[in-house]
This record gives sequence, C-alpha cells and structure tokens, in this order.
Amino acid sequence: MTPTQPAAFTEPTVHSETSEHPGVTQLFALLAYGEVAAFYRLTDEARMAPNLAGRINMATMAAAEMNHYELLRDALAKRGVDIVAAMTKYASALENYHRLTTPSTWLEALVKTYIGDALAADFYLEIADALPADAAGVVRAVLSETGHSQFVVAEVKAAVTASEKQRHRLALWSRRLLGEAITQAQYVLAEHDELVDFVVSSGEGIGRLTEFFDRLQNTHNTRVRELGLA
Amino acid sequence: MTPTQPAAFTEPTVHSETSEHPGVTQLFALLAYGEVAAFYRLTDEARMAPNLAGRINMATMAAAEMNHYELLRDALAKRGVDIVAAMTKYASALENYHRLTTPSTWLEALVKTYIGDALAADFYLEIADALPADAAGVVRAVLSETGHSQFVVAEVKAAVTASEKQRHRLALWSRRLLGEAITQAQYVLAEHDELVDFVVSSGEGIGRLTEFFDRLQNTHNTRVRELGLA
Repeated sequence: MTPTQPAAFTEPTVHSETSEHPGVTQLFALLAYGEVAAFYRLTDEARMAPNLAGRINMATMAAAEMNHYELLRDALAKRGVDIVAAMTKYASALENYHRLTTPSTWLEALVKTYIGDALAADFYLEIADALPADAAGVVRAVLSETGHSQFVVAEVKAAVTASEKQRHRLALWSRRLLGEAITQAQYVLAEHDELVDFVVSSGEGIGRLTEFFDRLQNTHNTRVRELGLA
Repeated sequence: MTPTQPAAFTEPTVHSETSEHPGVTQLFALLAYGEVAAFYRLTDEARMAPNLAGRINMATMAAAEMNHYELLRDALAKRGVDIVAAMTKYASALENYHRLTTPSTWLEALVKTYIGDALAADFYLEIADALPADAAGVVRAVLSETGHSQFVVAEVKAAVTASEKQRHRLALWSRRLLGEAITQAQYVLAEHDELVDFVVSSGEGIGRLTEFFDRLQNTHNTRVRELGLA
C-alpha cells in the first residue's frame, strides 16, 4: 500500500540500508520467534497424525519454518543483531497464542496450520508494505513458501464434506483461532510502538489499525471458504 | 573404494539409470526413514535444551534432516517409487535404535547427535562407494551437511573439561551408541540382502562385512577423541 497522505503530514521516511527504522529489527525478531514457535508446534501436533504420510507432511512444513528462520537470522546478523537475544521479548505473545489454541484432534491441528499460517502471513505482509525495499524483500521471502499446506485443504474438505457435525465444529475452531490471533497481535502492537509505526505509517493512526484488523478478518473468511467450513 | 577383484569374479554391475540395482531404492528408503526418525528424535531431545539457543540449534539440525528427506523423496519419485510405502519396512530398526538410546540429559543428547549422525554417515558413505554415480551423488548430497553439529563439539568439550565424571559417563554413553548402532545395522543388513550386496560387492563376502564394521569402529574412535571423551 502506498501512503496516501501528503509527505508533509508524515514522519520523514528515509530508509536507506544504513539508517533503518528500528522497527525492522523488531519485526524480524518477532517473525523469527514465530518461525521457531511454529516449528515446535507443528512437530508436537504431528503426534496426532493418523499415519506416516501425515507426520511427514507436518515435518516438512516445520522444516520450512526453520529455513525461514535462517533467512531472518542472516538478515539480522547483517544488521549486527544477535537474533536469540532480540527474539526473546516476543516469546510470551507467541507461546500464549499456541497455548490457547492447542488442537485436540488431527483435523483441528490441520485447520490451525492453514488458518494460523495464513493469518500470520497477512499480518506480516501488511507490515511489509511499509518497509524499505530490502527489508520488505526479506519478509516476502520468509512468507513465500505456502505450497506445503495445500495437503491440508484436501484432507479437511474431505472430512467436512462427510460430516456436517465436523464442519460446524471446525468452523467454530477457525473463529477461535482468528480471535486469539487478533488478541495476541494487539498485545504485540500495544507493547511495541516501533511495529505500530509501520502499521499506521500512512498517517491515519488508529483508524488505519482498525482497517488493518478488518482486512485480516476478510482474508480469514476467504480461507474458511477454501477449507469448506463456510 | 574401487573393487579389487578382477571383473570375471564379480557379478555383472552394469548400472545405468534404466537398469539399476534394486538395492538403490532400498537404500534410499532406509536413508529416508532415517531422516524422518532423526527429525522427530532431535525435536524430542530439544526439550532438554537449557536455553533457547540450544533449542534453535536442534531445530536447525532437524530441519536439515527434512531437507535431505526431500532430496530422497525426489530421487525415489524419479524412479517411480512411492517413498512412504518403501520406507515403512525400515521403521522398526530405526525406531529401536532411538528407543534403546534415549538420552537422559542434554549432554547425552548432544553426544548422540554427533556420534549417531557420524555413524549413520559412515554407514551410508561406505555403501555409496558401491553405487552407480548418480545414486552415489544423491547419497553424498544427503550426507553433505555436517556443519550443523559443530556447536556440539564446543559444548561437550567444555563440559568434560570441567568434569572428569562427565567425561567417563559420556565415554560410556558413546560406546553404548556404537553398540546399538552396529546391532541395528546388522539387523537391517540381515533382513535386506539387496543392501548387503552393496557392502560385499567387491566380492570378499562376509570378510568384507567384518572390515566394514571395523571401519565404523575406527571412525567412531576419531569422533570420541574430537569430543574430548577419549
């Protein structure tokens, strides 16, 4: 999204590689913890897989998260930042999200994988729009690999086509995932002004933040339809 | 190793891409299950990590295993083989090895990572020498990434330098790892003639198999010294 306000109303936004917004480091650290948390969550949830193929699909997705982590680690190292120290402050929000949305069935785990990853991608891509080009490139590379969760669509669709009860159950579950994701995203933004700066960088402040969450809701609804839960 | 026997004493070994030894598929399937088993073992053992950095190192190594798995999956797909079906028969030997060598401390987990991965690499690289070039290339690519476990050397060395008791304890542990690895390797070879064919393909039969295990023992001793356990 291009800022719509005239330049005079906004903060100066000269983002060269040498004078970068401090929020870039914070965003990368948040993303990095997100990848590690997702790695361990996926491998935990893989225990519920009904067969070896399911376990392997989950492991493959988990491995992709760590490959993304490595991109972020390298990007932070280039900025002279130790990733482990930088990411620790984001642990609680991400661990809380996962703790509050622990799936109790394999199908819930699959839906969480699909819906949760997509929400995280929406959140970060919205922010990427406000980043300097090189930083935006890192974020987009990190979020690029989405093909892995396509196996989820087939399995969930088959289950909810066979059972109307499952469809209702998983529709409720997907609403809960959205609710918890938004709660934790708001918590992260409330605690980290540098990140809010990106989200509201076009100058419309809190109005733009509300729009931001509305857009998350809209793309979430698309995913719910893709899974056959609508 | 180049076969030392004259060609007349050996089986015809014309291994083109179209007429490949059936052992190639079996070896790839065994390796593939090994990667998946190692992935889940590393993520389990990461629970014992004393800090986030340790958990991340384990996750990074686990992710590398799945990247290797993907190479094997693609190589088998090129041969028209469904990897999941092919690998199932190797589950018990690999799961037994991991079950019988479950570490009880973080240091034991680190030593197992280093010693176990190295033994597996020795085992597979010995076999690779008897493979047609393209298949050997796959095996070497799968085993190429060893840099990840260097963090283990630093951590184990520091611990055993500080405590003679730890050194004895971990030296015993590394011997047990070797013993269980050889037991399971023998089990796998006993059940799968196609694999033995590779190991004994220079024509010296069981004598060569004994040498094979002697070499495993020798490189194991090198690793034990590298970790400061000798």
